[in-house]
Amino acid sequence: MAELELIVQNFRQEMKRGTLVLAVLTRVDEPQYGYTLITELSALGMAVEQNTLYPLMRRLEKQGLLESLWQIEENRPRRYYQISTLGREVRTALVAEWQSLEQTMSKLLGGTL
Amino acid sequence: MAELELIVQNFRQEMKRGTLVLAVLTRVDEPQYGYTLITELSALGMAVEQNTLYPLMRRLEKQGLLESLWQIEENRPRRYYQISTLGREVRTALVAEWQSLEQTMSKLLGGTL
Repeated sequence: MAELELIVQNFRQEMKRGTLVLAVLTRVDEPQYGYTLITELSALGMAVEQNTLYPLMRRLEKQGLLESLWQIEENRPRRYYQISTLGREVRTALVAEWQSLEQTMSKLLGGTL
Repeated sequence: MAELELIVQNFRQEMKRGTLVLAVLTRVDEPQYGYTLITELSALGMAVEQNTLYPLMRRLEKQGLLESLWQIEENRPRRYYQISTLGREVRTALVAEWQSLEQTMSKLLGGTL
């Protein structure tokens, strides 16, 4: 049914928008190139488009959660991203938030389903 | 730090906005009065304001996920909400989405933290 599919799709998008920052922050302990990150996240079940991820990473850099460096590879410059000290603090806090939400949902879902 | 707190708060709000529909759908197998629902959700760790929940329940009814009935209590009419057949289908689909996201996050968080 179309209505159902729309609601489910909307839920999926909202949840993904919410968790993507945390997902990215778990992958950048080593310097990461955007395209590799897309491949990695997709392999783990979090598909993301270049035109969603690249602006997000620029935003995270602007907020001071990521640091970037240029490296020449195959004769062209590539921007690599790595988590900053602030980024690690934010990540720790988001992990705690996520775990708390997981516990709440587990209680809610365990109760009636 | 203010920046950190803002990012964490934003994450919390986005995640809550995403999961609230599913949370509500887990609580309405029996007819539920809005205010009782707020108390129940808060007790389980999902605090929600009346002016967030009531419009959401009206929207879910409009979408056909909830059905409502009036009941006279303490001399005034109260609107009770209960899950519909479509609501149950949506709930099943959202639970599957949630579990899939949980698995993805568990892989992501297990990897580096």
